[in-house]
Amino acid sequence: MIKIGIADTTFSRVDMGLIATTELQSLHPEIKVVRYTVPGVKDLPVACKKLIEEQGCEYVMALGMPGPKPLDKTCAHEASMGLIQVQLMTNRHIIEVFVHMDEVKAGDDRALEELAHNRTKEHAMMVYRMIFRPQEMSKLAGQGVREGFEDEGPARSAGGLGKSKKEKAKPGHANGSSQGPGRYHS
Amino acid sequence: MIKIGIADTTFSRVDMGLIATTELQSLHPEIKVVRYTVPGVKDLPVACKKLIEEQGCEYVMALGMPGPKPLDKTCAHEASMGLIQVQLMTNRHIIEVFVHMDEVKAGDDRALEELAHNRTKEHAMMVYRMIFRPQEMSKLAGQGVREGFEDEGPARSAGGLGKSKKEKAKPGHANGSSQGPGRYHS
Amino acid sequence: MIKIGIADTTFSRVDMGLIATTELQSLHPEIKVVRYTVPGVKDLPVACKKLIEEQGCEYVMALGMPGPKPLDKTCAHEASMGLIQVQLMTNRHIIEVFVHMDEVKAGDDRALEELAHNRTKEHAMMVYRMIFRPQEMSKLAGQGVREGFEDEGPARSAGGLGKSKKEKAKPGHANGSSQGPGRYHS
Amino acid sequence: MIKIGIADTTFSRVDMGLIATTELQSLHPEIKVVRYTVPGVKDLPVACKKLIEEQGCEYVMALGMPGPKPLDKTCAHEASMGLIQVQLMTNRHIIEVFVHMDEVKAGDDRALEELAHNRTKEHAMMVYRMIFRPQEMSKLAGQGVREGFEDEGPARSAGGLGKSKKEKAKPGHANGSSQGPGRYHS
Amino acid sequence: MIKIGIADTTFSRVDMGLIATTELQSLHPEIKVVRYTVPGVKDLPVACKKLIEEQGCEYVMALGMPGPKPLDKTCAHEASMGLIQVQLMTNRHIIEVFVHMDEVKAGDDRALEELAHNRTKEHAMMVYRMIFRPQEMSKLAGQGVREGFEDEGPARSAGGLGKSKKEKAKPGHANGSSQGPGRYHS
Repeated sequence: MIKIGIADTTFSRVDMGLIATTELQSLHPEIKVVRYTVPGVKDLPVACKKLIEEQGCEYVMALGMPGPKPLDKTCAHEASMGLIQVQLMTNRHIIEVFVHMDEVKAGDDRALEELAHNRTKEHAMMVYRMIFRPQEMSKLAGQGVREGFEDEGPARSAGGLGKSKKEKAKPGHANGSSQGPGRYHS
Repeated sequence: MIKIGIADTTFSRVDMGLIATTELQSLHPEIKVVRYTVPGVKDLPVACKKLIEEQGCEYVMALGMPGPKPLDKTCAHEASMGLIQVQLMTNRHIIEVFVHMDEVKAGDDRALEELAHNRTKEHAMMVYRMIFRPQEMSKLAGQGVREGFEDEGPARSAGGLGKSKKEKAKPGHANGSSQGPGRYHS
Repeated sequence: MIKIGIADTTFSRVDMGLIATTELQSLHPEIKVVRYTVPGVKDLPVACKKLIEEQGCEYVMALGMPGPKPLDKTCAHEASMGLIQVQLMTNRHIIEVFVHMDEVKAGDDRALEELAHNRTKEHAMMVYRMIFRPQEMSKLAGQGVREGFEDEGPARSAGGLGKSKKEKAKPGHANGSSQGPGRYHS
Repeated sequence: MIKIGIADTTFSRVDMGLIATTELQSLHPEIKVVRYTVPGVKDLPVACKKLIEEQGCEYVMALGMPGPKPLDKTCAHEASMGLIQVQLMTNRHIIEVFVHMDEVKAGDDRALEELAHNRTKEHAMMVYRMIFRPQEMSKLAGQGVREGFEDEGPARSAGGLGKSKKEKAKPGHANGSSQGPGRYHS
Repeated sequence: MIKIGIADTTFSRVDMGLIATTELQSLHPEIKVVRYTVPGVKDLPVACKKLIEEQGCEYVMALGMPGPKPLDKTCAHEASMGLIQVQLMTNRHIIEVFVHMDEVKAGDDRALEELAHNRTKEHAMMVYRMIFRPQEMSKLAGQGVREGFEDEGPARSAGGLGKSKKEKAKPGHANGSSQGPGRYHS
């Protein structure tokens, strides 16, 4: 049994905590989720710290949906700084999943939901990988993975870089056929 | 008896500390308020830390009204960073209630008072919920709650997201009839 | 006897440390000032920490005069972040008194001196109040106090806020006749 | 045997971790690399801390490729702040190697790969120097070294600075013939 | 014997470490310099911490030359935040001497060298004063000292500020004839 904390907010317009919970529980029977809902993203850092220190969570997902105004951007930045600090205080990973409202066209609720849904699920998948399949993580190194949007994939220059790219030819890493440049899960 | 600290400023143009005190005391007879007034928002972090460590407060509300100039914005940012740091040093929540003067039209004192009043009260209600009704918090997760203004409510796409939104259909969460997408209290 | 540290800079164009020292000593015979001059505002945080930890100061005033360029603004921001951090490391208040050179018209030395003089004195008065008259601080809560400029005073809407402002009517706080909306000292 | 940690990301579009590993291992037989791949740059700080504290790494390279949008810039800034913090918590160097996608023309994958390749290799060389040839580092002091691009070289005024530049003439340092103003390795 | 650490970079285009070393050693026979060269300004914080904690330095000078691009400005800001943090962790002063490349006209190497030279020397003089002549520091308080450029001198209003400036008339401080408003050393 591994405890994963999920901290989310009432400010968000999509129930990202529920999406993450459902996804994580479907990925592995040994995952136990502890949820903690706070008002906004700036309340997430201490919530995550409490999930780790008081609830014994080994990983935490911090879910938030910052608004489109400059003040909201500042709040998100402050929250992110706090989340990094908690990780350094606890030596635990906190996977931040923020969907900025202005990543989609204003008023397009469907696009907002879809983005929040996809990004949350794909980050949950990342958490799963980090815990249960760390070797998959290094295979994805440098693969241009994007959570919530199409992956960009690795940079692909026509002729390669000649000698300076010789490492790419080594076996056992990246660019392998079993994985390709596209999405890392379908 | 639960001690809640209220830190506020002489810089603010509305007595937000009084509003918070009155609201909290009306919400529950077991709440004891400890007030601490400092000059400006940058003095709030250490004030909150002292309320927690020297006065034994279990929750703190940090109330401030940053001015409209760029320098004021920077001060607010610095204060917010400090408030997050205090939370991480103490494992206690500090609910930040900042009303930026330029959130209303310059000179419209009534709008400023109203915003400060509503935001402070609604945040006091949040503190109350976090302490006495944590289960209500998770019901509000992802509901687009906004303190001080009308709630935005959850994102509502006409046709939903098909299979990818199947979680929304699960019982016991969000979107329930008893609560609706509007304000979380009336 | 209470020790108050005064940290100031050689960069400043006004001897704010002297103004603060003179003012504090005139306010109360029990105040003992310890001065510490450093090159610029970024040297203030550790200077303040040393005043608290090595000199036993219970309060500190950090005086600086950031220049008008973007780089100067960044320095001031960095200094402010450091000053907040010192407060959280020591549980002591550090009252920051920064006069930004571009708060007055470029070249108007008289206005600069006047602003530095007034802001320093009024902040010294605040320190005095925080130590010797804390009850006065809460009376000033929400009163729109501004150090160095005319106070803005509390927001005053013509008809009030009706029921939602009922707290304002309670006795024993703010808006009382003995104090008024103007400057908190003359 | 000296353990060097290499933390990299799945977000990057070039497998910088592999480049660094190959380079370091070719530089010295005593170097043992420990790799750790995380989703994005904001996950690097705690990854580096774990490499130091849990894996016993004495130096770490933190490799990332921030995107071109303002949000990406903010993420990179947050990551950098975290990386500095880890260094201060552990007294270990973490060499940050970030390639910002907008350092090359959008869509020019070859230029991106080349920049990532060169910058990573040259930083690996720096790590090697810091560990095995510290005296070379001080020879490079003030030489205008640039990782990933052509070195700018030291400032060269036609007539020098007269007496005020007399130090430049002292033996055993900088501007020496054995090293020149160009790249510090070829 | 007092140990002063000098941390500098290979990124800088002027050997500021050498300038500082030469200057400090000429100022006092009891000064012993420990140099430490790192790649860039972001590597300075931990380098300074190591100079203090592992080499026993009592003061440190952190020398750097940030580039002209926005990214360089961000790096400098991150480095400065780290340098302040080290000071607070160690209760030691670190005098930051940064020369931003865009402080002089692009391409004017002579102006760049001159600025780096003067600023480094004048800061070394400040370190000397802080250690051996602290009383001189308070005499320079509020004197508008500028390292690397002409001093601005104290603000000088034609008619003074009347009663509110009475402190200026006190003996033993500022504006005295022995020192004047110009450079604090020649």
